[in-house]
Amino acid sequence: MAGRVGFVGLGIMGLPMARNLMAAGYGLAVFNRTRRKAEELAAGGRAEVAESPGELARECDVVITMLPGPPEVRAVFAGEGGLLQGARRGTLLVDMSTSSPDLARELAQAARRRGIGMLDAPVSGGDVGAEEGTLSIMAGGEEKDFQRAKPLFEAMGETITHVGESGAGQLTKAANQIVVALVIEAVAEALVLGSKAGVAPEKVVEVLSGGLAANKVMEVKREKLLNHDFTPGGKVESHHKDLGIALAASREHGVPLPVTAVVGQMFAALEAKGRGGWDHSALLTLIEEGSGHRIGAGG
Amino acid sequence: MAGRVGFVGLGIMGLPMARNLMAAGYGLAVFNRTRRKAEELAAGGRAEVAESPGELARECDVVITMLPGPPEVRAVFAGEGGLLQGARRGTLLVDMSTSSPDLARELAQAARRRGIGMLDAPVSGGDVGAEEGTLSIMAGGEEKDFQRAKPLFEAMGETITHVGESGAGQLTKAANQIVVALVIEAVAEALVLGSKAGVAPEKVVEVLSGGLAANKVMEVKREKLLNHDFTPGGKVESHHKDLGIALAASREHGVPLPVTAVVGQMFAALEAKGRGGWDHSALLTLIEEGSGHRIGAGG
Repeated sequence: MAGRVGFVGLGIMGLPMARNLMAAGYGLAVFNRTRRKAEELAAGGRAEVAESPGELARECDVVITMLPGPPEVRAVFAGEGGLLQGARRGTLLVDMSTSSPDLARELAQAARRRGIGMLDAPVSGGDVGAEEGTLSIMAGGEEKDFQRAKPLFEAMGETITHVGESGAGQLTKAANQIVVALVIEAVAEALVLGSKAGVAPEKVVEVLSGGLAANKVMEVKREKLLNHDFTPGGKVESHHKDLGIALAASREHGVPLPVTAVVGQMFAALEAKGRGGWDHSALLTLIEEGSGHRIGAGG
Repeated sequence: MAGRVGFVGLGIMGLPMARNLMAAGYGLAVFNRTRRKAEELAAGGRAEVAESPGELARECDVVITMLPGPPEVRAVFAGEGGLLQGARRGTLLVDMSTSSPDLARELAQAARRRGIGMLDAPVSGGDVGAEEGTLSIMAGGEEKDFQRAKPLFEAMGETITHVGESGAGQLTKAANQIVVALVIEAVAEALVLGSKAGVAPEKVVEVLSGGLAANKVMEVKREKLLNHDFTPGGKVESHHKDLGIALAASREHGVPLPVTAVVGQMFAALEAKGRGGWDHSALLTLIEEGSGHRIGAGG
């Protein structure tokens, strides 16, 4: 095993990922904005709590971050007492947050100038994938850094892909979030039309699952959709942020994304209605309210 | 086995469906607008060519139709020399075309007044599903008629579901076509963004297939999308027609479908560009042209 591994960000995703690293035998140094969570993890004995990201970076060969989004990533990497200040030459920084491709490239360049390696390696699979260690991990950066991080990735994920240079991981995650959002919207429109016209939603799900319309969202979110249980899972506010990243990339690269733009506005409407903390499958509620019909009620 | 089965419409879907019925031991009477196709099928010995739908209906206990869309369905059922004129009391008519829920209800009522049974039972699974006998069949109508048709459905399909009353089959098919169209659009937007920003499309497909973005379209249409091979498969013009049916149902039932409406317009744009006969995965070409980038070229 390599030297000590640092982990910053023990939220709904980060905590089970850190646990899986410990279960695979890695000794961790951890930092979390809310210190209590770090101390709870350290109480098990295989982790040590650091005072700042910079201090943590000084003591570790590889540092993994799992943060809410670009502002937090920028602060933890480039802020006062941040990772780039603390890291020694030869350290590898791996940002597994969902963040912007631009920021990933910028931080990778700043790291490289200091002789520090950096990967952007966001994940798909949600809290369930994080807990079960079955995440899909999409990494951008240099091949040698990818190979170095691979054993760590294997402790947290199942589908592990080096997709290209710095920023490519975040771009692939943006592509992933486009597809997930549009599939949720598709299923929502189909279910509400069917139900208000008199076809039971569970029949629609059953039939559609047997053909070309089959998709993972309908399988994983089935109960949430049919029972209006919007406990997250992936939150509306996170997915709205993710589509913001996708649309910023679309502007930067000159790729008009008409339907992504529309569904982005729908997430904005859900947030405006106070549903930012609901599961992203709550796109269903907008179509229901637009049609004055709750699925199941008439189907 | 029940008495003779009639089959009207020996196109890209109908011909293999009729063949599967013959392979299951049913003797067929067939009618096709282009008579040559009916004669070719009859040459095998287990089918007889009828002069008109009406004549065919007189000789059969059950008649199955597989036609291009609502105008052809109306003509074959309600036109001069049509099925409703020829059918005896107790005959069962089964329309497996993709048609409108309204028309399905109207024809079912007209049939019932004459003591004739009717089901709307459209399919999903395309020409491949028709050939392999693995179609997903979604039937609307009375339970006793569904039970009577079930052995025939089992010779043509795998997932066979009674979804509700007359029209419910067509409504479920409309829901199916909404999801398929929006998923194609989702994958197209994701692939073009990724590719123009430098991520190879096959990497995007690989990573997305491992998580919540996984879907059947990406699996079945993979080669078409990556190689720009838009030989149909499901045609743009058919899918455009299907979304027209979905949007008409959305107006009738008061269910606004914002994203379905947008993607319907995109199919309209493809038809205006002369691509009505291309595979529906050609939605990709609109996003490519909008961004001045062909996937694979830069990724």
